[in-house]
Amino acid sequence: MSVAETVERAAASGLPSTARDDRARWLEALASALETERFELVRIAAAETHLSDARLDGEITRTAAQLRFFADVARDGAYLEATLDAPDPSAVPPRPDLRRMLRPLGPVAVYAASNFPFAFSVLGNDTASALAAGCPVVVKAHPGHPELSRRTAELASRTLDAAGAPAGAFGLVEGLDAGVELVQHPAIAAAGFTGSERGGRALFDLAAARERPIPFYGELGSINPVVVTEASARERAAAIAAGLVGSFTRDAGQYCTKPGLVFVPAGSGVEDAVDAALSTVIPQQQLTDGMTTAFTNGAAAFAARDDVHVLGGSELPGSSPTVVVTDAEAFTADPRPFLTECFGPLTVLVRYRGPDELDRSIAALDSSLTATIHRGADEDVSRLTAALARVAGRIVFDGWPTGVAIAWAQHHGGSWPATTASVHTSVGATAIRRFLTPIAYQDAPESSLPAELRTGNPLGIPRREHP
Amino acid sequence: MSVAETVERAAASGLPSTARDDRARWLEALASALETERFELVRIAAAETHLSDARLDGEITRTAAQLRFFADVARDGAYLEATLDAPDPSAVPPRPDLRRMLRPLGPVAVYAASNFPFAFSVLGNDTASALAAGCPVVVKAHPGHPELSRRTAELASRTLDAAGAPAGAFGLVEGLDAGVELVQHPAIAAAGFTGSERGGRALFDLAAARERPIPFYGELGSINPVVVTEASARERAAAIAAGLVGSFTRDAGQYCTKPGLVFVPAGSGVEDAVDAALSTVIPQQQLTDGMTTAFTNGAAAFAARDDVHVLGGSELPGSSPTVVVTDAEAFTADPRPFLTECFGPLTVLVRYRGPDELDRSIAALDSSLTATIHRGADEDVSRLTAALARVAGRIVFDGWPTGVAIAWAQHHGGSWPATTASVHTSVGATAIRRFLTPIAYQDAPESSLPAELRTGNPLGIPRREHP
Repeated sequence: MSVAETVERAAASGLPSTARDDRARWLEALASALETERFELVRIAAAETHLSDARLDGEITRTAAQLRFFADVARDGAYLEATLDAPDPSAVPPRPDLRRMLRPLGPVAVYAASNFPFAFSVLGNDTASALAAGCPVVVKAHPGHPELSRRTAELASRTLDAAGAPAGAFGLVEGLDAGVELVQHPAIAAAGFTGSERGGRALFDLAAARERPIPFYGELGSINPVVVTEASARERAAAIAAGLVGSFTRDAGQYCTKPGLVFVPAGSGVEDAVDAALSTVIPQQQLTDGMTTAFTNGAAAFAARDDVHVLGGSELPGSSPTVVVTDAEAFTADPRPFLTECFGPLTVLVRYRGPDELDRSIAALDSSLTATIHRGADEDVSRLTAALARVAGRIVFDGWPTGVAIAWAQHHGGSWPATTASVHTSVGATAIRRFLTPIAYQDAPESSLPAELRTGNPLGIPRREHP
Repeated sequence: MSVAETVERAAASGLPSTARDDRARWLEALASALETERFELVRIAAAETHLSDARLDGEITRTAAQLRFFADVARDGAYLEATLDAPDPSAVPPRPDLRRMLRPLGPVAVYAASNFPFAFSVLGNDTASALAAGCPVVVKAHPGHPELSRRTAELASRTLDAAGAPAGAFGLVEGLDAGVELVQHPAIAAAGFTGSERGGRALFDLAAARERPIPFYGELGSINPVVVTEASARERAAAIAAGLVGSFTRDAGQYCTKPGLVFVPAGSGVEDAVDAALSTVIPQQQLTDGMTTAFTNGAAAFAARDDVHVLGGSELPGSSPTVVVTDAEAFTADPRPFLTECFGPLTVLVRYRGPDELDRSIAALDSSLTATIHRGADEDVSRLTAALARVAGRIVFDGWPTGVAIAWAQHHGGSWPATTASVHTSVGATAIRRFLTPIAYQDAPESSLPAELRTGNPLGIPRREHP
């Protein structure tokens, strides 16, 4: 089927007018189908991605949990933001009966990620949140796992058909040209993307240049700074080092939330502890040859500088865990190279001497999905929190940014280039809002109102009513 | 002060970290200041805009009500969307303590409108909602009322200073070049715009082409279709005609919600009643000479067609209320000219013969801010509602779209070109959300949390808590 045919089928699906409870059931059926086919899917994914069976198995569990979470979000109905104003003829201007809620935007283009072949791919978070919203989805497969994408798509179509979802609710297209055509198709109402800054920017520009621009929700890259305070380094340098090494090398460091820049007190022992912890890591192969090359080049560029030294990084060129060490002075003199994401198991330790150097370093930071603070027991880090809140969408305390929880209060976003839109989150309940748009009814008869807005709240959803 | 200096002053103002209650007080002080200076401001505005004293006086009342409404929204705190997840170590992946809320985006550029010299200008809805959010505002004055813009800006600065707001919370710039520089300034985080499709598109393109694109919330134009059902025409043709003429000629028809396209049953008597009602209207001068010329040209283009006839429009070229009458057949054969907004007191009556012609006409409609249905007593118009909901952000029943109420459930938006962003509303409580972005705190100590997210809800705002 051509891109145009796939999109037109989506536009004609009638999914936007289906009931929330039905969509919740369809999402749950997709979750169960993934679990049923788990072994076969892991086998195909492992062959295409070099990720371990254990990681892929865990990612299927996560993906099923995401689908079920968005089923909960759809059933709950708070996401509709149902709001009612009673009439007030004495207001200036007079206030009529007004009732507002959100409704589906229309067909959504989803650009699958390389690094999460399940959780941010064909049946990943973008697809789950769009279907929950009532938006048909056309996924552009990632070329890093084509066979897995096709198999997952077949499974999705079969499962949705069997569960009674309308034809066209889900479709798959493949190839670079298809991706370009997709974001420009007049019937596509929004796009979700997880990938590189270069690819994301190109698609963003196409979305903005349309005769009728559409929102483009891209997650493009993040450095995820970490601050280790002097008190926390004194209390638990070894534990912090072990946690850091575990986080930045996890699955070959191929996470958008990988901690890529770590401020440690000079002479604190964290650096030595990191060096020691590094030796315990078993190197893993990266997703693609292109990524391996990019990583090797990135690591080599750091190694060639005379203001850094490198820990690790020698055994297996291209995927060996690597720690670049520099001083705050070198970092603040020219932060750009250190703020450029090097996808893979590499992080930069920046040694700071005292609060002034740390403040100057934080002032040089760029936007990120996350920022992390390791603090001493009972240490007040409110000033540090405020400084990091300026640059990050999620502030993590005494933990690590990888392993993004699926939760109502989760936020996975940040200013450009972390994400392309200020309201963007691709994880957490409000991911659904990316694919919704408001409508208000003024003095409407009950028969013209969606059930969610009728008098007496017959569906019992959370609403806000102003008397 | 240069544009750059004004923006830098805004960025350095510290407004984002002020308390909601303080911002509410500052908005109320602005409302009172407008009321105190009412007579002088009306005098200046009348000289610059040709709008009547009564209209301008009413608009000051509206503008003050808007400022007080956003003070209420800020105090209420629901707009922060505070959401808390309790930890769940058994989840996959484990769920930490997560707390999410919205926070100010940063300095906002506001492009003032011509047609609302108060309510969508210097201290209009965009400014009120941005200040309520905690975002400093730099207004680009509309050239149609320069003296009024300066006087209102001086009043605003003086009032904010006296009330204790930080310096830089508000600034004004003037001129086309300043407007272009403003949307491109790196410290500007979002823009609000009310005006023409051409001007809005040019600024939208600049916002999207930045090294770091920003959201551009533009309201660009709308045709606001009205459907008069056969039952309603039978019941009250004269009342509908009088209401329509009052709405489309109000203040020389210079409203974004002016009903510009009205589907009436052929031979129903509405057309004759409109013709009769037209004769009672006193023509009013338009805002600017440019608008008068554009209106004259638009009306003349209709008059030159051989598939329409024109009611009214002869007495005072350039501002005489004009009704263009055509048949559904002509409309559906080439809808474009009828869907192009003609700013000023002009509307198009489209006569339809039976439900099929009406369906085909509605299918040809473009996006609008509003759609209106006049129905018979107890007539079920649910199918018609669904068809119009496809193209409009607000559906009005048995009334008129002008006179947009200030309310929690209000929505003033629609797909491009009605508005540039799917979440856009420039009226109603959620207008504040355009200038906010989320942040999540993971396992944060109480001292690092904003008061709105602390355990026990010390500020008593609406929150959602998941145990």
